[in-house]
Amino acid sequence: MEKTKQRIIDAAIILFNTKGFDGTSVRELAKKANVNVGHISYYFDNKAGLQEHLLSSFFDQYVSILEKVYKKMSTYTAKECLLECVEKSMQFHRENRQLARYVYRELTFDSILVREIMSTYLTKEKYYFKAILEKGHKKKEFQVPSVLMAVMQLKSMISTPFLQSQYLAEVWHIMPYETSAVDQYEKVIVKWLEQSVFVEQEQQLERIAL
Amino acid sequence: MEKTKQRIIDAAIILFNTKGFDGTSVRELAKKANVNVGHISYYFDNKAGLQEHLLSSFFDQYVSILEKVYKKMSTYTAKECLLECVEKSMQFHRENRQLARYVYRELTFDSILVREIMSTYLTKEKYYFKAILEKGHKKKEFQVPSVLMAVMQLKSMISTPFLQSQYLAEVWHIMPYETSAVDQYEKVIVKWLEQSVFVEQEQQLERIAL
Repeated sequence: MEKTKQRIIDAAIILFNTKGFDGTSVRELAKKANVNVGHISYYFDNKAGLQEHLLSSFFDQYVSILEKVYKKMSTYTAKECLLECVEKSMQFHRENRQLARYVYRELTFDSILVREIMSTYLTKEKYYFKAILEKGHKKKEFQVPSVLMAVMQLKSMISTPFLQSQYLAEVWHIMPYETSAVDQYEKVIVKWLEQSVFVEQEQQLERIAL
Repeated sequence: MEKTKQRIIDAAIILFNTKGFDGTSVRELAKKANVNVGHISYYFDNKAGLQEHLLSSFFDQYVSILEKVYKKMSTYTAKECLLECVEKSMQFHRENRQLARYVYRELTFDSILVREIMSTYLTKEKYYFKAILEKGHKKKEFQVPSVLMAVMQLKSMISTPFLQSQYLAEVWHIMPYETSAVDQYEKVIVKWLEQSVFVEQEQQLERIAL
């Protein structure tokens, strides 16, 4: 039974990504998933319910990942926490790359569902990132002139390989789904963090000394 | 006559942003623009032609702005060029904010039109940004560990108030279309550039000395 549900989800991700939500009919969905229309109604009520499920389950899992890292803040340094956020988030996005692409595009629409997702999940995401960045700033591990900009950049770096996969391929000739490219991209993020956010060891000592 | 064309464009931006491209019919477009369906055919052939016009004209103007700044590279410093790119781009996006929102969302789709836009315009955008960043790096004005990351971040910062306007409003309580918020956001970008890209005066002298 759960296999039927998963087949509907997989078919929806493919069709919503290629034909769009409005361009996909329930009939096509059922055909692609090899199920009856009744199965879709049973599990998700309708197409809108299926869309809600995709967005909610994606952000529910993603925010749980950040929450787990956030809870380690008392024992780990802010730097360790931030690096773990990046690593674990990238891993999760990579494992759900087609869904990630759909979800991030959907978020640019103005709808009641999107507002709910933002007030439920993205408010938590902001809270966790902000807490880690502010701890790092306070402990002189980070230099963060603007928390807003730092969070926006982290979010943009994590979502770029998925939301902008075509741009990366066409303009930069990077195939963001290839393992080597993803590894390389993650290294670039870490390099950026080291240069722009993390305070260097000497600098750190200096600041603490002052 | 040109007024009719502009009315069609204005109506298309509103309808494509609220109902999506697939969710908008030519009939609705004609009604909203207060024109005959024949006018749409005359100016744009069909809905796809109208979409192509919106994307091409947006990126044509945007890339011209970058090109003008790029041509000043022999007389201005890389820092001055980069700041002017940000200022002029933000101004252009602000003046065309509804179109910008539509255009950036459309770019996340995989289509022949999007590929053409990327290979025509975004390849040029990359070329200009890269040239300015590399000059700054060479002249020790900038520290750029990764050109890819620097370009991605510049692009993301410029498009964020438009593509992510709802996120900024819901989660950060920033109304990105208000003049004060846009000014504030621009200051945050400049602050980021100063901290992450521009080499400080003392650092700069040091590096040159070494």
